Amino acid sequence: VTLDLVLVGFGNVARRFVRLVEEKRQGLARDFDLRLRIVGIITRRHGTAHSSRGLDAPGLTERLESGRLVGKTDNRPSVRVLRDHLARHAASARTRRLVVVETTTLDVGRGQPAVDHVRASLSAGAHVVTANKGPVAIAYRDLMRLADAARRRFLFEGTVMDGIPIFNLARETLPVVSVTGFRGVINSTTNFILTAMEGGETFSDALSAMQKAGIAEADPSLDVDGWDAAAKACALANVLLDARLTPSTIHRRGIRDVTSEQVAAARRMGRRIKLVASAARRDGKVTAAVEPVELPSDDLLAGLERQQNAIIFHTDVLGELAIVQLGAGLTQTAYALLSDLVTIARDIRPAPRRARPGRSLGWRGQR
Amino acid sequence: VTLDLVLVGFGNVARRFVRLVEEKRQGLARDFDLRLRIVGIITRRHGTAHSSRGLDAPGLTERLESGRLVGKTDNRPSVRVLRDHLARHAASARTRRLVVVETTTLDVGRGQPAVDHVRASLSAGAHVVTANKGPVAIAYRDLMRLADAARRRFLFEGTVMDGIPIFNLARETLPVVSVTGFRGVINSTTNFILTAMEGGETFSDALSAMQKAGIAEADPSLDVDGWDAAAKACALANVLLDARLTPSTIHRRGIRDVTSEQVAAARRMGRRIKLVASAARRDGKVTAAVEPVELPSDDLLAGLERQQNAIIFHTDVLGELAIVQLGAGLTQTAYALLSDLVTIARDIRPAPRRARPGRSLGWRGQR
Repeated sequence: VTLDLVLVGFGNVARRFVRLVEEKRQGLARDFDLRLRIVGIITRRHGTAHSSRGLDAPGLTERLESGRLVGKTDNRPSVRVLRDHLARHAASARTRRLVVVETTTLDVGRGQPAVDHVRASLSAGAHVVTANKGPVAIAYRDLMRLADAARRRFLFEGTVMDGIPIFNLARETLPVVSVTGFRGVINSTTNFILTAMEGGETFSDALSAMQKAGIAEADPSLDVDGWDAAAKACALANVLLDARLTPSTIHRRGIRDVTSEQVAAARRMGRRIKLVASAARRDGKVTAAVEPVELPSDDLLAGLERQQNAIIFHTDVLGELAIVQLGAGLTQTAYALLSDLVTIARDIRPAPRRARPGRSLGWRGQR
Repeated sequence: VTLDLVLVGFGNVARRFVRLVEEKRQGLARDFDLRLRIVGIITRRHGTAHSSRGLDAPGLTERLESGRLVGKTDNRPSVRVLRDHLARHAASARTRRLVVVETTTLDVGRGQPAVDHVRASLSAGAHVVTANKGPVAIAYRDLMRLADAARRRFLFEGTVMDGIPIFNLARETLPVVSVTGFRGVINSTTNFILTAMEGGETFSDALSAMQKAGIAEADPSLDVDGWDAAAKACALANVLLDARLTPSTIHRRGIRDVTSEQVAAARRMGRRIKLVASAARRDGKVTAAVEPVELPSDDLLAGLERQQNAIIFHTDVLGELAIVQLGAGLTQTAYALLSDLVTIARDIRPAPRRARPGRSLGWRGQR
């Protein structure tokens, strides 16, 4: 199978994705009979590129990183540029081989223009994989209905805990289990800041460190005021708990008011302050919240250092289980996009060759 | 799809499985179009039952628990009894609808008679799901080859961390990722004992408590001398790292020599002693070990209380990620068998109806 990819957004994640695709080219072909061809790149300020035979995406990545444009600029709204691109690939859309890879930045209020990108793509017969939290946090149900009607995939593994397969885990591996709620630390920047404050650093020094490392969102408010965690909590609640929440309507308190004194006082008592995102269904109604919570030391979430993330799922049959991310970064998010593409490829060709075990875990078991 | 099940072994796990099947009957039918019919039960000492139209398995469960036989006793070796059962179901075997549910007790040396049960089943065209660690720890590669040749499934999700989807996770959700090693606390009894010793209890009191709760293996040596952890470590290494290990050939030290003084001394230093199972591939060779290790407090494994389990996977693309089991028990193991049966049903009917999201996570995404 060859999938044709149109990249909307060409920031850090998308560029790491392009390189990861190169690095994993052989493995994808061998284990999944999957070839990925990047046929379009749409950026807001750095131009637009297109080639039906496939772009030199690594070359364009270098171009952009050396400060040049990837192609001509196009001043129209991005969704119109995208529609033009999609129209050129009607043939691969018809054979379900066209995928839009959406990595524009988060608009936590309305999810735009990402929601429009997703809609336009599905309507044109393209699958969508995205690392942008907006669409799934704000318009999950509508977009899923659209995807179902179009018989195309709308996948978003990278939106929560990067490449750790949260949504995939629930979708593929927990039949008959109902998730009744969750509790987690899902924003790396605030956890890093809180950990650093325990070590005596100031809030603002710790924040600058995260911005320099490229981990913090460009707009610090997204992290510090709990918006990023709220968007992830809504994504999880909408998908796993069948909720209809949006980030601006849930209870949300960030860490701006948490003082070094509070952090130190908790630490002296063997406790730790963490920004906890949670959701639960009670009497048929789902509520979610993001807020700083002082946790006892034997709480799994209390043990998370620096950028570590974890989610504890409450389930009916399996009790509580947790997924912990001990290492995070761009590569993990880029990987999430790749794993979503493999999911699409498996739909098209449901019984891929079994990979050599131990080399890659992509084998789907014997048939 | 209706799957016909022959249960080999009818102990705690199998009986909880029978009840779970009853409890989840509606959900399985609605979400997976799956009906389960128990057509045979084979026990070592409590008789054998058979009905092609389906046994009253809950009734037989009660029978056995009130001290009666489930049917006539048969003194031949269990594998011969099983072959007779399999022969009666050639039609469902031919249509890939026959499954042997293997839950006999662990023989950590040779894995018998479980290995023979698996072989006989696959050879007769039945799938096998098992919670017995022996076959996958001792004969994984042979059995997998046999399963591949027979085009039947050999599944064993319940062998490690009960119903937490360890093998499923790796098989279904981590394409292109290579696992390079792991480190985990995977035996509940020893972790309970070590935690209790920290609280001042003696080794033997803690062990009796676990035996009374039905958590400890009947033969305490399996837990205390690290055999259970070794079998699980081999299962993980054989499947995820393409190893050819067996429990009796890996480095193994149990917790018998760990004294209350050592546990207390570690605790005073803020450290904790845990029975750690680990494996890694170095220079193409996989080694595994089970041994008590004194861990610093910021190690995820150090935070595990009582019966909690966790495995930290080392991967190439995703760095380290961990799965933590916060609640364990018979229901979880029984659930693992059920989830393996859903995997088989999905093979037969690869695009089941989408379940209502939030009710069950069994939906497989839109197509």
